[in-house]
Amino acid sequence: MLEIQPPQYFGHLLRGLGALWPSYLAYALSFLLIGQVWVNHHVMFDRVRHVDREVLFVNTLLLMVIAFLPFSTSLLADALRAEQGLRVAVVAYGATLWTAAGLFNIIWAHLRRARLLDPDLGTFGIRAIGRRFALALVWIGSGILVGAFVPIAGVVVIAGFLPAYYLPIRGEYGEDTATDRPG
Amino acid sequence: MLEIQPPQYFGHLLRGLGALWPSYLAYALSFLLIGQVWVNHHVMFDRVRHVDREVLFVNTLLLMVIAFLPFSTSLLADALRAEQGLRVAVVAYGATLWTAAGLFNIIWAHLRRARLLDPDLGTFGIRAIGRRFALALVWIGSGILVGAFVPIAGVVVIAGFLPAYYLPIRGEYGEDTATDRPG
Amino acid sequence: MLEIQPPQYFGHLLRGLGALWPSYLAYALSFLLIGQVWVNHHVMFDRVRHVDREVLFVNTLLLMVIAFLPFSTSLLADALRAEQGLRVAVVAYGATLWTAAGLFNIIWAHLRRARLLDPDLGTFGIRAIGRRFALALVWIGSGILVGAFVPIAGVVVIAGFLPAYYLPIRGEYGEDTATDRPG
Amino acid sequence: MLEIQPPQYFGHLLRGLGALWPSYLAYALSFLLIGQVWVNHHVMFDRVRHVDREVLFVNTLLLMVIAFLPFSTSLLADALRAEQGLRVAVVAYGATLWTAAGLFNIIWAHLRRARLLDPDLGTFGIRAIGRRFALALVWIGSGILVGAFVPIAGVVVIAGFLPAYYLPIRGEYGEDTATDRPG
Repeated sequence: MLEIQPPQYFGHLLRGLGALWPSYLAYALSFLLIGQVWVNHHVMFDRVRHVDREVLFVNTLLLMVIAFLPFSTSLLADALRAEQGLRVAVVAYGATLWTAAGLFNIIWAHLRRARLLDPDLGTFGIRAIGRRFALALVWIGSGILVGAFVPIAGVVVIAGFLPAYYLPIRGEYGEDTATDRPG
Repeated sequence: MLEIQPPQYFGHLLRGLGALWPSYLAYALSFLLIGQVWVNHHVMFDRVRHVDREVLFVNTLLLMVIAFLPFSTSLLADALRAEQGLRVAVVAYGATLWTAAGLFNIIWAHLRRARLLDPDLGTFGIRAIGRRFALALVWIGSGILVGAFVPIAGVVVIAGFLPAYYLPIRGEYGEDTATDRPG
Repeated sequence: MLEIQPPQYFGHLLRGLGALWPSYLAYALSFLLIGQVWVNHHVMFDRVRHVDREVLFVNTLLLMVIAFLPFSTSLLADALRAEQGLRVAVVAYGATLWTAAGLFNIIWAHLRRARLLDPDLGTFGIRAIGRRFALALVWIGSGILVGAFVPIAGVVVIAGFLPAYYLPIRGEYGEDTATDRPG
Repeated sequence: MLEIQPPQYFGHLLRGLGALWPSYLAYALSFLLIGQVWVNHHVMFDRVRHVDREVLFVNTLLLMVIAFLPFSTSLLADALRAEQGLRVAVVAYGATLWTAAGLFNIIWAHLRRARLLDPDLGTFGIRAIGRRFALALVWIGSGILVGAFVPIAGVVVIAGFLPAYYLPIRGEYGEDTATDRPG
């Protein structure tokens, strides 16, 4: 995860801690996003009967992009603090997320095409999850576009994506239940 | 976890190692606390039948706060070593713990209200675990208050919380057993 | 994993990010290789009935070499950036991979000799997996040799090994199926 | 794990890599030791029926000491490189290992006394594992004593402990089998 360095100077510690706000923001953004990716990764692979080498390969690419998030996130935090390069940092941050979302969509499309999904899920559930993955592409894509013109507004659009994605959707767990088993 | 940097100068290594005592203290405090959180997290989720998206969301917030502990802990160690900013560091450290305890309480209250708990646990066990979580809020809250006036005493109060929390409580594992399965 | 440091100067961030290309290349190489090792490790141990202390020992050596990869990889990235020492860095990087491949072959040979493999796998499957492990030794060995004379060509040979290794091989999952269970 | 920093200067890279030998030695020592601890931890908890809060507490202390090993190890590597403070570093390194071995012995004694062990193991197996844990205390203790007078000889004694500990012992897996299940 993103590491935050304590202030060097402990004389006015409260002020020093306050100046680190871009790091806290980036830390929270990053953590909530990785938490979400993790939940969605579970949701996806819980509904899979078999995986083939294509899925393993794209999944490795996905993990590679996720493990890149701390870099993009600290870039965003540093740009906020330096008050320079924010446009490039927001676009780079959004592009990392967008690539992850794209790989989710590619895995899901392959699982559908190759009939590797659990038949219990049903057409309705398959479409519900697929729509959610497609929505991520559009939402984050919009955040990148907005951020290319008004960097800070791009951060807001992407941050707004977080609570929206935790809302439950109908059909996600099959036709008749809205709960998940733990683990 | 908290990383401790070896001394730069190896001429009087024993003295150099001795000077690192705030780091050892912070390391031990932090490790025992995270160990405790991990045990309690297990205890809680072992007694859950289903989790819903609300639990997943608050649990992500909880993990976010736990993953923030190394930052708060190294802040505390650095303040002890710098002999400056200790008041702010103790309060920040306590506040991180208190927030984690608060999120535990929120998850537990939600699990009770939404009837997601294992019925085998029984009302007695539910109350025993709930009381323990509530006690954590009061104990750590007191440590923060004390630490705001006498920083070092706040560290002692919070450290004293550690052994107390490892003591077994009646009812935690249901009405008639005091042991847990490994894993 | 390999950590990439954001640029120090945020004035021309896009240019600064571009200059980090050796780190991105090394990160991707490293991640895909570790992903591959992980898949092959799973494939191997899924086909094992028992492990003995010899396997545990060689497997610890294997994990030791894998955990050394981030060092070799950042060496490669730093040499590319410094435009110095590339020959040594490529050979060191290849040697790390070659040692890992060698340990895979030693474990596999021991599992065969000591009859610790799942009998369901069949002679055909045992040979198919063994040939793949032997191929890795030859391929990476060639990359080291080429790299000792033309460093950059050695990187290309080793990188070319990656997609080749994700291609499925006949017999890997027994005589009659080409899919794997997730997990 | 112990992180090794690549050389700063890439002009004479081979020489620069050679100068890092204390780090490679420390890395290998540390990795083999942690691998061994992990194997022994598995061996121990595979034979346990229940754990109680006392075991959880001492086990947390054990993990705390294990997670401290990278610090002791880099201390040893830095002292070898600085050619200063080696006596203190060897004793500190040995003391970390000895404490871990001591905690293993405490957990094992408690599991025996509290009758938490799997009855299938039998008196013979219990004694065989207990003797191995006691041997570790004596062996590492001797290494510390030797190291307090001739530092480098202490390193050799402790390093010699590694292969000895991977040798199988009679009775470890019950009366009639010498193999273990994977996982």
